[in-house]
Amino acid sequence: MIWCVIMAGGVGSRFWPLSQTDNPKQFLDIMGTGRTMLQTTFRRCAELCPRENIVIVTGDQYVDHVHEQIGDLQPHQVLGEPLRRGTAPCIAYAAATIAGLDPEATLIVVPSDHAIFREERFKDDLRQAVDTVQRHPWILTLGVQPVNPATTYGYIQRGKKNSLPEVKNLHPVTTFTEKPPVEMARQFIASGEFYWNAGIFVWTLPVLQEAYKKHLPTLWEAFFNSTLLTPHSALEQLYSQFDTVSIDQGIMEQASNVHVLTASFGWSDVETWESLYNVSSRDSRGNAIQGDAFTYDTRNCLIDIPDGTTAVIDGLDGYIVATANGTLMICPRHREEMIFRFASDVELKQLIDKK
Amino acid sequence: MIWCVIMAGGVGSRFWPLSQTDNPKQFLDIMGTGRTMLQTTFRRCAELCPRENIVIVTGDQYVDHVHEQIGDLQPHQVLGEPLRRGTAPCIAYAAATIAGLDPEATLIVVPSDHAIFREERFKDDLRQAVDTVQRHPWILTLGVQPVNPATTYGYIQRGKKNSLPEVKNLHPVTTFTEKPPVEMARQFIASGEFYWNAGIFVWTLPVLQEAYKKHLPTLWEAFFNSTLLTPHSALEQLYSQFDTVSIDQGIMEQASNVHVLTASFGWSDVETWESLYNVSSRDSRGNAIQGDAFTYDTRNCLIDIPDGTTAVIDGLDGYIVATANGTLMICPRHREEMIFRFASDVELKQLIDKK
Repeated sequence: MIWCVIMAGGVGSRFWPLSQTDNPKQFLDIMGTGRTMLQTTFRRCAELCPRENIVIVTGDQYVDHVHEQIGDLQPHQVLGEPLRRGTAPCIAYAAATIAGLDPEATLIVVPSDHAIFREERFKDDLRQAVDTVQRHPWILTLGVQPVNPATTYGYIQRGKKNSLPEVKNLHPVTTFTEKPPVEMARQFIASGEFYWNAGIFVWTLPVLQEAYKKHLPTLWEAFFNSTLLTPHSALEQLYSQFDTVSIDQGIMEQASNVHVLTASFGWSDVETWESLYNVSSRDSRGNAIQGDAFTYDTRNCLIDIPDGTTAVIDGLDGYIVATANGTLMICPRHREEMIFRFASDVELKQLIDKK
Repeated sequence: MIWCVIMAGGVGSRFWPLSQTDNPKQFLDIMGTGRTMLQTTFRRCAELCPRENIVIVTGDQYVDHVHEQIGDLQPHQVLGEPLRRGTAPCIAYAAATIAGLDPEATLIVVPSDHAIFREERFKDDLRQAVDTVQRHPWILTLGVQPVNPATTYGYIQRGKKNSLPEVKNLHPVTTFTEKPPVEMARQFIASGEFYWNAGIFVWTLPVLQEAYKKHLPTLWEAFFNSTLLTPHSALEQLYSQFDTVSIDQGIMEQASNVHVLTASFGWSDVETWESLYNVSSRDSRGNAIQGDAFTYDTRNCLIDIPDGTTAVIDGLDGYIVATANGTLMICPRHREEMIFRFASDVELKQLIDKK
């Protein structure tokens, strides 16, 4: 059977002041769709497999969040990690849980907080991927045609040949490159051989277990060759011994049976205000507005106003204006990296005020 | 005895979104002092006369506001006008009320929503004014040395001679000019004969009644020669028959016994965000900040953030950032006249949303 694993353990504060450690991006309606990113991802997965075959892995502290946002989940569908150790343990934990129920399962692993455009194509691509891994002992990654030399994404280089003679959008992977400098990213794009790594992986459980056994034996031992998984206290002890390792570093960059299916859907990891701006619909003056905002002589702004508040904005060009959780932020779009400083300044102030 | 009349009937929306029709400026802590403007004015008056000699005239709809902000007032101390008809009926109403208690009273009439700096000098000036009108049958206005060619103030031209040979800061008034064009205002200042009209008047009840009888006989008839004042329903009928007339137009510009005492205190009518900016203390980058705000690369801004909100502002120069009553406003300081449009756009939207 097909199973979906949704990775929902992010603690990102890049969307501060909207996202905060106790309520990170996947639990927010960043896109202004009326659904949180997790809810949208769940709904998308429910078109690929039975609802009860969707497993969400998150941090222990967010398990309640998940249950609040997605009603009616069975215990095996929400897994809380006691510690953050990267995507490799996260996927192993989900895979081990699924292995106990369906040892021959096909797994679609997706992040909980990315944006997908043209969902019909997404479904088609994923069905093709599932079909492929059910016939061939491969690990499939999904690659997205890059539209600009982004330096915040991972890039997948495809081999020149097709993986299968009759299939055009499937190639063996040559290299993975995480967050290249812009000049390198430009060369990547010019070559026509590189794709953005969408963080979506499709593989069967036997292939997955084989990969862990070969490349991440400690994790394999812990999750697939022991009964240490329960009780939860044992899990915490187990996790505390793991190194932090991503699935890309731990397996994709090591394994020789990784193929890339070049996606036909639109995608963004929506990791930053700037990427949200880029994927948002905008008015004729380039303003991407969520919530009630009146703009005058205002251009190229990203405006995010919560329900119950009205904004009146005059004479701004290229700013982020966001208000949430008792904080108003006004910041030039090109100075978004200041957000970490903003957040820490405000946090420090709040700490001092409490004393 | 000395009495103070505080005119608190303004409905101004120039400080939108802070001030709104149901909570205008005099009831707000616009200056960030911890007291509303009315409270500050009341406290100032209480140094000039007994507390129970302070009479506040406001709109009917604001009578409760006054009682909430100034505790322990007797009925004669809060007068609600049923309609807005300008300062001439307002002062007549207060004067008639006081006349019933103290026919020989000396009245100090002050607006409720102006800022006074150097309060000791204010007290000295007012004591001098009281002393003068108790010896001479004059109407005294207070004139403030202009510091710039403001086009939003009234100007008082003084005669060249002193009113009294031994007193330097007291002159007969030659002309009143309301809101002159900037070129005229420049000439006024250059001449050295013009002062800003602070809207503060000092006179005895007999002189006041004489002035109303001569220049505003309808108001004199209504307030000083009848018993129509009560009940309240009669007052509404009465007011509905009045023309709207200011004390400046109705009496000051007509009477020949008006003198100006040139004030030694600092003053602003704080009628606009810009005038608030001008009278506010600022940080080394020219930011006038009320509330919790962190600024980065930000200059010459006026920032007004309510309790419970923190603002983080990066890269603004010369803006007003104000949030209140569920509305966030960001607007260049030099575009402040847009506020009326903002307010009406937001109001219209709220009306439509309700339907």
